[in-house]
Amino acid sequence: MAGRLIGVWNVKAVSTLQPRWVQICSTSSRLTSTAASASFKASDVQIKHAENSKPKPKVEDLVFGANFSDHMLEIEYTADKGWGKPVISPFHNLSIHPGAKGLQFAVELFEGMKAYHCVDNKIRLFRPMENMKRLLSTAERLSLPTFDGRELLKCIKKLISIDSEWVPRSLESSLYIRPTFIGTEPTLGVGKSTSSLLYVIIGPVGPFFKTGFKPVSLLADPQFTRAWPGGVGGYKTASNYGPTVYVSNYAIQKDCQQVLWLFGNDHQLTEVGTMNLFTFWVNEQGEKELVTAPLNGLILPGVTRKSLLELARKWHEFKVTERNYTMAEVQKALNENRLLEMFGSGTACVVCSVEKILYNENWLKIPEVTEKKSLTKRFLKELTDIHYGKVPHEWMETLDD
Amino acid sequence: MAGRLIGVWNVKAVSTLQPRWVQICSTSSRLTSTAASASFKASDVQIKHAENSKPKPKVEDLVFGANFSDHMLEIEYTADKGWGKPVISPFHNLSIHPGAKGLQFAVELFEGMKAYHCVDNKIRLFRPMENMKRLLSTAERLSLPTFDGRELLKCIKKLISIDSEWVPRSLESSLYIRPTFIGTEPTLGVGKSTSSLLYVIIGPVGPFFKTGFKPVSLLADPQFTRAWPGGVGGYKTASNYGPTVYVSNYAIQKDCQQVLWLFGNDHQLTEVGTMNLFTFWVNEQGEKELVTAPLNGLILPGVTRKSLLELARKWHEFKVTERNYTMAEVQKALNENRLLEMFGSGTACVVCSVEKILYNENWLKIPEVTEKKSLTKRFLKELTDIHYGKVPHEWMETLDD
Repeated sequence: MAGRLIGVWNVKAVSTLQPRWVQICSTSSRLTSTAASASFKASDVQIKHAENSKPKPKVEDLVFGANFSDHMLEIEYTADKGWGKPVISPFHNLSIHPGAKGLQFAVELFEGMKAYHCVDNKIRLFRPMENMKRLLSTAERLSLPTFDGRELLKCIKKLISIDSEWVPRSLESSLYIRPTFIGTEPTLGVGKSTSSLLYVIIGPVGPFFKTGFKPVSLLADPQFTRAWPGGVGGYKTASNYGPTVYVSNYAIQKDCQQVLWLFGNDHQLTEVGTMNLFTFWVNEQGEKELVTAPLNGLILPGVTRKSLLELARKWHEFKVTERNYTMAEVQKALNENRLLEMFGSGTACVVCSVEKILYNENWLKIPEVTEKKSLTKRFLKELTDIHYGKVPHEWMETLDD
Repeated sequence: MAGRLIGVWNVKAVSTLQPRWVQICSTSSRLTSTAASASFKASDVQIKHAENSKPKPKVEDLVFGANFSDHMLEIEYTADKGWGKPVISPFHNLSIHPGAKGLQFAVELFEGMKAYHCVDNKIRLFRPMENMKRLLSTAERLSLPTFDGRELLKCIKKLISIDSEWVPRSLESSLYIRPTFIGTEPTLGVGKSTSSLLYVIIGPVGPFFKTGFKPVSLLADPQFTRAWPGGVGGYKTASNYGPTVYVSNYAIQKDCQQVLWLFGNDHQLTEVGTMNLFTFWVNEQGEKELVTAPLNGLILPGVTRKSLLELARKWHEFKVTERNYTMAEVQKALNENRLLEMFGSGTACVVCSVEKILYNENWLKIPEVTEKKSLTKRFLKELTDIHYGKVPHEWMETLDD
């Protein structure tokens, strides 16, 4: 029955049932020509060192995603030969056929993750296998070949160890890691790509907000929709992002910094820009509650989202709920002074406070996060302490793990 | 009010109202940094000829979209310098930064159009300005720069005239033209691409069905959705295609050749694979009627679709209707022997008969198109006669027009 419901807009069904096609994806290795066991191996990696290292920008000059290290990782796949050997070589442009399925049909996906220079001078990654799992799930949804995620992670660690000087020695910055996977078959019919390129580029990034912890304003306009039941909203496909650029620009015209993506005729809150969204309030039963949209195929299963939920559930200090909730509920909570905080979460910013929302031409003012007992700031400190190794945690992996 | 409705799933509203954001797109040159008047000029084209011509495949060996001519057209754009000069040069791979917004976020789009070697030995294009208009509308939706469509068409004609030997001298094949437009800015934040590349590749294609006019079987499964209100289903973005590959493979597993994309809890028929869909029936009022889904932002505004509607309306022989219609209506018409024909339309196949539909685990058998008075075959002959110049028509443009 679940499958019957996912293609339609019975919102309750969408929120509570596991879509059948998600199940299909996670069990359908028969639909991909290569089983997960057929993988490249990190032990086969071939390394060509750059002759010179590029000058490294100062931490205070870093713009997100604009600086890249000296090397990159590439692994080619062809249907007849399978996976090639991983190659680490000097950072370079890709030579791509103009008819490649990546360029023509968005048969392409990415991941975003970070490595930190920790206080004990070791470099650590934050929950990297979570990204490997999501990468594989997205690859399967785009009919791209799968592989052993641990082998890719080993290759990434090798790349970082070669470019270890690019991991900023700063508690305000980190190394951003961008695995990308594109279909390269050069034919113009829409179909499975029989060749593909998995590559990883890395580069230093500064604090997401240069001027410190700065809350954002959001446009919540129901005329724009990010994802839909029966689509790919729960995967990190490139196709989820291009169509949002115009809407983000539209939001800027309306004096908003990001888009709050609504869904359904009851205007459910789903995501913010490229972040998951959390609301902390006193619910109608008078309980303190942290609420976020459920993983129903419409939102990205964020690694930071997952981590915040796990932290909060461990604290046992307030109710933690994954469910659909609506703008009407938010407005009611604001009117009744029950809304405490609202924030986005993501790899780039970790957490990001919401200041106000433009909805139906009215500004909804979210309470300011100033006091020290703010949940948003507590999450930021807790995760940052873990990231930089101030608090040892099983979520962090060194390059040798 | 239209804007209020497009983000939600009031299906009647979606079908009858012009979405506000479509209006925004078509009037919002302020949202693109370059007004349409700032364009490259075909008179500036720089030509570098290939030293040798590649061997041309036999018409009977042609696979759709697998063969490319000797030259290609490229035009670069940067936010600070604007449009560069058009360059026609030997066909080559593109050198693309691995962090380009096209590869990362599907800031990319394409068009598909054809040129024919006509019976009077002239080469003609079929309604090329329709493709230019759609290209510009899609570019605007992806916040890519716009330009003068007539100038691009002149550049394309120049490219075809240089590679004119690649236009097959056959009434069963044609030259396929693939304009492509990608964001090239090499930064990893989701945002407007400040640099981009518009390019055009061309190549000979054979008849879509090698074995002649062959009807297809379709999977109609409501768990999959191609497009939705507030999304980009009405534009030719690359992002509309990648997510469909998995579903097409799923259809093949179910012994179907293509996907019939349904929408809504009433299972409206929208598109087929990469084609628009037409149903020819005797409606419940006893009238002969050709029906197809309306241009409500959920389906691609096909040039062949438009042409078939215009032809049929000119004939005045039966009712021609653009409206939402459902699988229940199709099933009822089949049960009452009122369904006459069903076919897809598109640049690649022109028209393509539907043989049967797998819906709710049952096969719906569509009447066979055998007799000479078939509407599908009449459309095919009419359009083919226009394409190859057997019937002179204003829709065709020579390279000198």
